[in-house]
Amino acid sequence: MASNKRGIFLSIEGTDGSGKSTQIAKIISYLQEKGKDVVLTREPGGTPISEQIREMLLDTANAKMTPLTEMLLYAAARAQHVQEKILPALAEGKIVLSDRYVDSSIAYQAYGRGLGECVKTVNEIATGGLLPDLTIFLDLSPQEGILRKSKEENHQMDRLEQEQAAFHERVYEGYLAACADAKNRVVRIDANKDVETVFSQIQAAVEQCLDLR
Amino acid sequence: MASNKRGIFLSIEGTDGSGKSTQIAKIISYLQEKGKDVVLTREPGGTPISEQIREMLLDTANAKMTPLTEMLLYAAARAQHVQEKILPALAEGKIVLSDRYVDSSIAYQAYGRGLGECVKTVNEIATGGLLPDLTIFLDLSPQEGILRKSKEENHQMDRLEQEQAAFHERVYEGYLAACADAKNRVVRIDANKDVETVFSQIQAAVEQCLDLR
Repeated sequence: MASNKRGIFLSIEGTDGSGKSTQIAKIISYLQEKGKDVVLTREPGGTPISEQIREMLLDTANAKMTPLTEMLLYAAARAQHVQEKILPALAEGKIVLSDRYVDSSIAYQAYGRGLGECVKTVNEIATGGLLPDLTIFLDLSPQEGILRKSKEENHQMDRLEQEQAAFHERVYEGYLAACADAKNRVVRIDANKDVETVFSQIQAAVEQCLDLR
Repeated sequence: MASNKRGIFLSIEGTDGSGKSTQIAKIISYLQEKGKDVVLTREPGGTPISEQIREMLLDTANAKMTPLTEMLLYAAARAQHVQEKILPALAEGKIVLSDRYVDSSIAYQAYGRGLGECVKTVNEIATGGLLPDLTIFLDLSPQEGILRKSKEENHQMDRLEQEQAAFHERVYEGYLAACADAKNRVVRIDANKDVETVFSQIQAAVEQCLDLR
């Protein structure tokens, strides 16, 4: 499936409050200043069909959704995202930056929901094996993340955010496991540092990824 | 997952126009007359979340949906259906009759869409391995099915029905393969016969299934 790939695929991962949105804006500005053709996208979402699935996933009315259903819906949204948006952009030589990708499913579904190995199996099928060239993991302990998030004014908690602290602990473990499993792909960056320090480390990793190609 | 199962799980399968709806009504009447506690359900659907997924699948506006996305959405709807509705009913000792189940995905996605073996892998995960005690396959050639369907007045063709004849040929092949793979579970019934003849054969198969338990 990924045979025509000529561009570069970046993903960024992190628990709630890790400063992901801020860093994404900085990465996009940086790449555009370098004259790169960048596509910013997000999961779940990125295509009209995937956004419809996203609405189902985040709807607090769907409280009866089982972990298996949730995992399969994320995979369905991802399959559409890969085939309709990511692969075509890569085939055109673009840089694709995805706010979350398959490591989110490992962290949230395999570890957070306790579904285990089947998450990997389903996602290999959903993505046709497509993995990012570089994944940036913003490493922030779940306790610190919840603290940061709760300080934001007027923030409405969605269904996933309402889950308990134990869940977020398992998600964090999942991210650490994903980092350990894919050392060549995932760069772990300490998100406790200030915004500029974090960004300079991201920039170094992205530059190295671009130079290698 | 299916360890608490005490009831009986029946599914009915068939291509468009095979007389499935008519036979379902007759099976339900027959079982209720025998004093059985019967739950009639359908796929995709059967629960509020699965029905939301069904709407996405049948929406003609979602023409860009890829075969992989479609397959994963069917599996997500099925996972919710199994866990929220089928397994609880079976645990209460009820007879569950599902209008379509996993064989539909083998026929439509693995064969019709050409996705192959991954459909089985994903569905084993989605269902936790739950298979019906008996599956009734109403065997009608696709040519005959389309002819019957087109004669219905005011019938609005949905997205799946708009697919070409070649697709329906592959679906039919898929059903025949599913029958061959699971001879002990799937009963193939000639749906060219008149309604009463078809039903008497279904009745015999259902009675045998009930007696065996």
